[in-house]
Amino acid sequence: MDMHELTRSLHAKNDSKIVMLVADGLGGLPQAPGGLTELETAKTPNLDALAARGVQGGSIPVKPGIAPGSGPGHLGLFGYDPLAYVIGRGALEATGIGFELGPKDVAIRGNFCTLGPDGKITDRRAGRISSEESAPLAVKLREVKIPGIEVFVEPVKEHRFVVVLRGEGLGGDVHDTDPQAVGVPPLKPKAANAASEKTAAAAAEFVAQANKLLAGQPKANGLTLRGFSPKPALPSFEEVYGLKAAAIAVYPMYKGLARLVGMDIVGKAQTLDEQMKVLEENWSKYDFFFIHFKYTDSTGEDGNFAAKVKKTEELDAAVPRITALNPTVLIVTGDHSTPSFLKSHSWHPVPTLLVSDCCRFDNLTEFSERASRTGGLGQFEAKYLMLLALSNAGRMGKYGA
Amino acid sequence: MDMHELTRSLHAKNDSKIVMLVADGLGGLPQAPGGLTELETAKTPNLDALAARGVQGGSIPVKPGIAPGSGPGHLGLFGYDPLAYVIGRGALEATGIGFELGPKDVAIRGNFCTLGPDGKITDRRAGRISSEESAPLAVKLREVKIPGIEVFVEPVKEHRFVVVLRGEGLGGDVHDTDPQAVGVPPLKPKAANAASEKTAAAAAEFVAQANKLLAGQPKANGLTLRGFSPKPALPSFEEVYGLKAAAIAVYPMYKGLARLVGMDIVGKAQTLDEQMKVLEENWSKYDFFFIHFKYTDSTGEDGNFAAKVKKTEELDAAVPRITALNPTVLIVTGDHSTPSFLKSHSWHPVPTLLVSDCCRFDNLTEFSERASRTGGLGQFEAKYLMLLALSNAGRMGKYGA
Repeated sequence: MDMHELTRSLHAKNDSKIVMLVADGLGGLPQAPGGLTELETAKTPNLDALAARGVQGGSIPVKPGIAPGSGPGHLGLFGYDPLAYVIGRGALEATGIGFELGPKDVAIRGNFCTLGPDGKITDRRAGRISSEESAPLAVKLREVKIPGIEVFVEPVKEHRFVVVLRGEGLGGDVHDTDPQAVGVPPLKPKAANAASEKTAAAAAEFVAQANKLLAGQPKANGLTLRGFSPKPALPSFEEVYGLKAAAIAVYPMYKGLARLVGMDIVGKAQTLDEQMKVLEENWSKYDFFFIHFKYTDSTGEDGNFAAKVKKTEELDAAVPRITALNPTVLIVTGDHSTPSFLKSHSWHPVPTLLVSDCCRFDNLTEFSERASRTGGLGQFEAKYLMLLALSNAGRMGKYGA
Repeated sequence: MDMHELTRSLHAKNDSKIVMLVADGLGGLPQAPGGLTELETAKTPNLDALAARGVQGGSIPVKPGIAPGSGPGHLGLFGYDPLAYVIGRGALEATGIGFELGPKDVAIRGNFCTLGPDGKITDRRAGRISSEESAPLAVKLREVKIPGIEVFVEPVKEHRFVVVLRGEGLGGDVHDTDPQAVGVPPLKPKAANAASEKTAAAAAEFVAQANKLLAGQPKANGLTLRGFSPKPALPSFEEVYGLKAAAIAVYPMYKGLARLVGMDIVGKAQTLDEQMKVLEENWSKYDFFFIHFKYTDSTGEDGNFAAKVKKTEELDAAVPRITALNPTVLIVTGDHSTPSFLKSHSWHPVPTLLVSDCCRFDNLTEFSERASRTGGLGQFEAKYLMLLALSNAGRMGKYGA
């Protein structure tokens, strides 16, 4: 059973405020047996003080042993079963740069590549072209005209860009044109079903015109298209939880994910300090606040243990700004673990702390992987966290009589 | 969602080696409150040393409160949802004696019984006939001839034997002929659906001819048929995980279960020492090794606490032979608990230890029920163990972007 069937009928409104502070990639690993994780190493007096009046557990992003990307990681935290709701890669890329997809759109990831005189790929990433070189080329591709279809092209980074085709009857199931190899030409766009034939034809026309526009470029004289996908259909926070929700994020990806579940994107914060200011300014206007902190993930991805410790300490320093607002429920968690030991997202449960007056305090004295292992929330799938948030906020009625 | 849909698309190949050491019936119970379990009583220095560089948890074989047989117990460990994949009793019995079922087969459990002169059952187990007496009778039943159908009969033990009918169009849904009572005749084989009519007719013919062959026998002059079942359709380890897998087991049942998921049965070991030798000899040839140790279960079934302790210590002594091979991931678990206090399989979570360089060590100092209760894996359903194995081996990509 979809939990939203329950929350739709059981949610209740009140004046409570829920804050979900997401430290991206929060969970970590020790470097060796007996060692400490990044979070265990960091000095986090504010989070530890919260631990003493909260309850901890380990959030399993998807299922045991599954490392998620940012999309499924956040869907889980937002209470959308990440195995039931899938955001296509094109849609996620568009979301990541803040492109707001509409119902008639198909989003596609584009890669510049280098083609030899025979039309075969010699470099799948166009010689690792810089963003400075590639962005004007992506903009140039806006000159492509396809009758009856609006074409959007947006630069992303290095060899990557986004194409959005907007029109009637554009199915989203078209195979990638990237052959995942050099020495062969890009594949033709091929529809996986009849409803996507028009999309495949439009994509082929896009490629033909684009190749002409790129002719003569030393590196990026060709392109491949991947991850064709329509706008994902996600019910909104308002509809499933009765929550007016705000997202306070710095990076476009997380703003985009929040927008997909109907959150308002508030403020233009570029720093954690500015994010706290936006939170304070908007405190009276929303029921739910999603605050995204990126740097625990990016330092983990870099394999920089010390930097992740430092970023965790920076996060800790911001906590008093939140508690000063006296939220009814404060949750501190991550969308997944990003241990610097692995330099990648991982499957390990994420230390998760929930503070409310009725959370059944587990009286732990630090917020960490080792503490959360013995916490009152146990290990739980992330998709249940919003149910706990609503209940702790007094916003969920009883199931059954 | 079937987890195999994920593993099929996310698994990656590398040079890692995964060992799953299954101590059958590993989990136990103390004899009284405050007491120790068999595993807690046993001196297991090698397993305890592993605990210090691993992570523990409690594996729930099926769901809380469900004690499984060997079939579902192993399916769970192998990552096949034991509630979704069901091995019929006839197929399990055939598997247990090493009979390799084919796609046109229906396997049936046969029981010899004693019939009175009126054809009514006087003893459902043929006077607890010995295997020595019953085996030649089972072999005699091979004389049964059914046009268009190949008939196999194999002795099992005491009053039990296996019948396999092989032919075109043999459905597997036929009701048991054992009336579960004395004073009544065996039931006629009755098809549960149209596709199984031919099977029911063949079974009726088998019974008629068998009764003639058994006429005059003092104990086993009749038979009942139970658990009609086709070969279970299980995807292979290679297909769902990309693992070339070997099974090193002594007993036919566990070899059979491993074969059903596409493992190679390697070696002819009869002792744990020989099993270790087979492991060493095949180390370079496989990605995954399933090692089955029976005696923690059989001593538990006997209700012999001291013997189970001793067998656990024997298992512990073999561990250095495994660690010397330096597996990427080593898992020690059981398919279920078999507490000698209960003399039977039980539902209790099975202490489970996973050792890898990225397992998030929980720094416990012993491998036991009490330690595993506070371990980093928490309590988890056995069917997720293979996901953890793959991830810890670096063999699983990220889910979603």
